[in-house]
Parts: sequence; C-alpha cells; structure tokens
Amino acid sequence: MAGAEWESLEQCLEKHLPLPELQEVKRILYGKETRLLDLPRRAVEAANQGDFELQGHAFAAAAAEQMRPPRLIRVGLVQNKTPLSTKAPVAEQVSALHKRIEAIVEVAAMCGVNIICFQEAWSKSLVVLSLPPLISKCFDEKLAKKHSMVVISPILERDHSHGDVLWNTAVVVSDSGAVLGKTRKNHIPRVGDFNESTYYMEGNLGHPVFETHFGKIAVNICYGRHHPLNWLMYSINGAEIIFNPSATIGSLSESFWPIEARNAAIANHCFTCAINRVGQECFPNEFTSGDGEKAHKDFGYFYGSSYVAAPDGSRTPGLSRNRDGLLVAELDLNLCRQMNDLWSFKMTGRYKMYAEELAEAVKPDYNPHIVRE
Amino acid sequence: MAGAEWESLEQCLEKHLPLPELQEVKRILYGKETRLLDLPRRAVEAANQGDFELQGHAFAAAAAEQMRPPRLIRVGLVQNKTPLSTKAPVAEQVSALHKRIEAIVEVAAMCGVNIICFQEAWSKSLVVLSLPPLISKCFDEKLAKKHSMVVISPILERDHSHGDVLWNTAVVVSDSGAVLGKTRKNHIPRVGDFNESTYYMEGNLGHPVFETHFGKIAVNICYGRHHPLNWLMYSINGAEIIFNPSATIGSLSESFWPIEARNAAIANHCFTCAINRVGQECFPNEFTSGDGEKAHKDFGYFYGSSYVAAPDGSRTPGLSRNRDGLLVAELDLNLCRQMNDLWSFKMTGRYKMYAEELAEAVKPDYNPHIVRE
Repeated sequence: MAGAEWESLEQCLEKHLPLPELQEVKRILYGKETRLLDLPRRAVEAANQGDFELQGHAFAAAAAEQMRPPRLIRVGLVQNKTPLSTKAPVAEQVSALHKRIEAIVEVAAMCGVNIICFQEAWSKSLVVLSLPPLISKCFDEKLAKKHSMVVISPILERDHSHGDVLWNTAVVVSDSGAVLGKTRKNHIPRVGDFNESTYYMEGNLGHPVFETHFGKIAVNICYGRHHPLNWLMYSINGAEIIFNPSATIGSLSESFWPIEARNAAIANHCFTCAINRVGQECFPNEFTSGDGEKAHKDFGYFYGSSYVAAPDGSRTPGLSRNRDGLLVAELDLNLCRQMNDLWSFKMTGRYKMYAEELAEAVKPDYNPHIVRE
Repeated sequence: MAGAEWESLEQCLEKHLPLPELQEVKRILYGKETRLLDLPRRAVEAANQGDFELQGHAFAAAAAEQMRPPRLIRVGLVQNKTPLSTKAPVAEQVSALHKRIEAIVEVAAMCGVNIICFQEAWSKSLVVLSLPPLISKCFDEKLAKKHSMVVISPILERDHSHGDVLWNTAVVVSDSGAVLGKTRKNHIPRVGDFNESTYYMEGNLGHPVFETHFGKIAVNICYGRHHPLNWLMYSINGAEIIFNPSATIGSLSESFWPIEARNAAIANHCFTCAINRVGQECFPNEFTSGDGEKAHKDFGYFYGSSYVAAPDGSRTPGLSRNRDGLLVAELDLNLCRQMNDLWSFKMTGRYKMYAEELAEAVKPDYNPHIVRE
C-alpha cells in the first residue's frame, strides 16, 4: 500500500484504538497533544468546494512569560498534485498551478495564516528536462501583498547574471509584498532517479535567516533535511521556524519522513515544517538510473503527509497521503527560547571542538580515530 | 500513564489493529519489517526464570554482494532496574547488580550475542551523591572472556591519574577479555534534576571508534544523543554501530526517544542502539532543581523502551517500559556501506563549508546571517 490507497497513519489509529490507549500512543508518537483549531466555516466550505483537505492544529501553549507577550502566529503548509499532465503546453501547466495555489492561499488567508510555504519547485512539475524553468516572482508578490502574508515560494531559478545556470531556490516574500530575499538548496541528491545534480549545483548562499514580522524563518530545501548540520546552521543564525519544502516518494523515504524534520525541531529548539508533494507525475520521456529497474516515466508515489514539529518534540498529525491539502498550525514562538533554556543544546554543543574535528576530517590524509587491539 | 502501567507501544498496536492496517502502520513507523529471531528454548526459559524480558529480532537482509560475504552479527542491549534499594550498603547494591547482569549476559551468550552493551552507569544507581563510584573492570573482563563477547560497560570512572576526578565513561572490553579502550561522555546535561555537570566534566577523549572482531563500534553516552554532531563524528571515524547507553525519564524525553537514535542511524548510515534504564530509583537525600517542584527523592520514571535502528530507517520494536530486559538484534553490517552508496550523505555533506561556518559561529563577535527588510 505504498501508493494512494492508504490515507494516513492518524486516521488508522483513531479508527481502531480505544481512547485511553489512543492517548498513550499519541503521547509517545506525537508528544504533547495538539488541539484542533476552530477554523472559519467559509474556509472549510471553500476547501470542500476546491476538493482539498484542510486541517488546523494548535500546539500546546508555551509557558506565560513576564517580560514577553506570547508570540502566536499561524503557518500554512501547502501540498498539491500537478493539476495538468506534463504533456500539456507549459504555459497551461503553469497557469493551472497558479490557479490551484491561488485558491488554497485564499483559504489560508481566511484561516489567518501569517506565513505560507509551498512544496519544492511548486511552480512546475518536478522534472526540469528541457522545459524552461519559470520564476513566479510576480505571482508570489501579488499573493503576499493581497493577504499580508509572508510567502515562501520554492522555485527553479534561472540565474541570468551567471550564465543562465539553474538553482533550486526559495524566494521569501515579505507580507509587504516586497521580495525579502532568496535562499538556495544546499545539498543536492545523487540518489536513484533523483538525478538533480545534473540540473543544478549546491547552493552558494550559505544559511540565511529571514527576519519577518512574524518571526525569524529559514528554508532547508528537500534533501537538506538529511543533513543535521544544515538544520543546525540555520538555527545558529537564529531561525525560529525552518521550512522544509520537499519532493520525496514512498518506496525511498517514507519511514524517514516522520523522523528527520522532527529530530531537527528537537535538536535545534525550533519549529520545523515538513512539506511533501502528493500524487504521481508522469513525464513524456522515459528514464532510468541504471539500478536494474526498467525504464519508466515517473518517479514513484509522492506521499504528501506534510506536518509541523515543535521544539518540545510534539508534532501535528500529517496531511493525507493522497490529497491536495492545506495544514494550518498555530504556534507560540516563545516556546523556542523556553526549550533552549530548558535543554541547553546550544550551550552544551561544543561547536568549537566540532569545527576543529571537521576541519581535520576533510583533509585528504585524515586518519580516523580508530582503536585497535 | 507515564509510569509503569503501560507496557509498550508495539503491544498496544498489535492488540488493536487489524493485520493489513498493522502492516501499514509498522511500515511507516518502523520501516522495513524485522523478523522474529528463533532463540534457543533454554534462553527463553532462563529469561522467564530470571523474570526478565527477552526479545530477538533480525533486520531485513542486506543485499548480497559479490566481493564481500554478509557480515551478520548479533548485538545485545540490556536494560534493568537497580535490584536493591539505594539505602542498602553500597557493596551489597553492587553485588546484586553484578549478579543480575551476569544472569542476563548468560542468556545473551545462549542467544549468540557478539557485542553487548549495558545501560549508562549500570554498575550503580544513577546518582553519585557521596557514594564512591565503582569500576567494574574485572567483572567486565571476566564476562567478555568467558563468553567471547565484546562488552561495553558504561561506568562512573574515578581518574586516579588526574586528581581523582570523575568521568562518565564506557569501557570497551574485547572478546579476548582485554580492555580495548574507553570513551567518555562528550555532552553533559544541565537539565532539571539531571545536574550531572556538578559531578563530572565533558569528555576529553574525542570520538574514538573501536575496531572489534565483529565490526567497528562507538559509544555515544546518554545526553550526547541530542547532539547530531556527536553521532556524526563517530560515524566519520568509521563507526558501523553506535551504542547509546542512557538514563532518561518519561515526563522529560519520552517523545524524543523513538526519534533521535533512529535519526542518527539514518543520517550516518550506521546502526544505533538506544538503551534506557527502567523503573524508579529512590535516594536517601531529597533534592530539587529549583524548578518549582517540591523537593523529592527520585528522578521520575525511567521508561526502558530500548531498541535498535538500522541505516535504512527501519528499527526493532522496543523492550517494555516496565521490565528488565535483553534485546537481541541480528544485523548485517554490509547494510551500512550499501546505504552510504545509495544515499551518499557523506559525499554530499559539505563538511568543509560547515567546519568554516562553525569556526565563525563560535567567535564572540559572530554576526548571524540575518536578512531584514
């Protein structure tokens, strides 16, 4: 059942487990319980009409502080299929995607979302092939300004200033409508069919954090979630929420998915937002990665399951594995510093030692520290 | 139900979920299915008689390789209560612990265990207070030699060569019976009641890896599991299995527990063994960490739940939350390099960049990379 026919882990558990046991299972699997957000009726209706899932969850309140008011904000995570076939004319594909996203963003606005993030390379189907990548900058700015919402828009960037090369990029648009900046995918997969290293290079913008009206945010694109150091550097630069727009398939990574972003939230005293594509995308040309599988025209099944994790180890349920969806999560950013003060991973991190050990380890003649009898 | 009355997540799921759904839940929660080991009847009987849990699981086979035979080995994870009250004379406490561990190791030997690891500071109850820490070196050497088993023995070490200071240490004894070496806890908690920083200092032995007859192993003691860089350096030095002997309680970390060691196995292409104490320990003197709780004589409930995670993201079920136990896991170390070759996190890790970024980040005048409107 690695495909669309199994909807979600949470639905299965809620259906079969008696209440006291369900609570215990959830405590261990999900940490402190989140509560359902009371979303406006018109948002729910619009989602139904638009045929996409809408979930809203609030994390348990952070402790009250004497010197800071709560910093409650709402994030929106969008997962979606590509509405048209990859054989349709490119302009039509893009226009259909814009229309789809616009409808979901409208609902996010009704739900009071302050920061919204789309899936990796949302503005087109995943494979670049010979199609010209499209920057949807104007579209994002329009949406941001209209809804006073920070928009994180992961796209494929054509870099006109550097020989028209491609980057896997996320543009961050302020709620004022101005482009705040961009960040690039730092780690590029070289895994099976995900031959992205033949399309673009490792990001060269370091680990920028964007200070928005709603908190300090960063974007760790897709495969970067497998690299704990990538999360760490965003956190060291002050990120309170790290978004992880992704595109990953069931047979490859589904058992990693609930682990990695959540571990990053714990290890870095921050919120993380894991966003995956959903559905299956079929391409005009067949391909193979020489792994023994027959040549094929799709990557496999993108299993959705987008979720938000908190620095206290709790997490929201995931969106479904098979439907477009918007996940709204309410969180109090004060929890980040509270967890930092409680657990002290930054104080106990010994980063100087690791900087030195890593600097040694990358030397060509490095001699690993091995003890032999 | 944060205490002893709830036995384990796995037992609850197996009891209530219909088979096809159970399989799907397990696929997402635990990855590729492990299979039950067929353990010798006399081992099962001895465990019953000794009143401790015995579980045996084998991970899915690694791919067959033309140039290397499979490297199948068995690890043993031991979790146990302290048999006597902390008010009993120290020598009696230690002797009872030795007896208990010896009985469990006997069963491990019957089950063909090659490498065994005890819980953090196993040779005494957790709080040092004014009791003299005891090194159980002779005991470990005897066991190792008797059973041709590598023994990892986490103890409190009295360092006679350096002013009688204490370390939180793990001694690694080769299957020949010789001490192969030792490693020290690199990160010391400063969290609530876990005021260990007043007992011993951060380890000064770096990240040694021990080359045994059964594979290359390392020991990341307790709180070090919250630090992804700690796991990483053991892995860079070549560890194929990283043991994590711990002592942690339900209200603090139970929702972190299934995440962290498993994330480390994924991120580092290695096996990880998460071992926790079990039960409640009550001490003669009351203590408080000034967190608003009344002075008390115990840490809280150590929830056991020891497990093994594999580099492909799969994991064994956990031992129970409330019983002494031995978990035997059969694994093929070839899987480490296979996952390394598939996922390439080491090749794509960009450690040079991180060494430089961390070296900057620790400077007192470091200016975090923040983008403002």
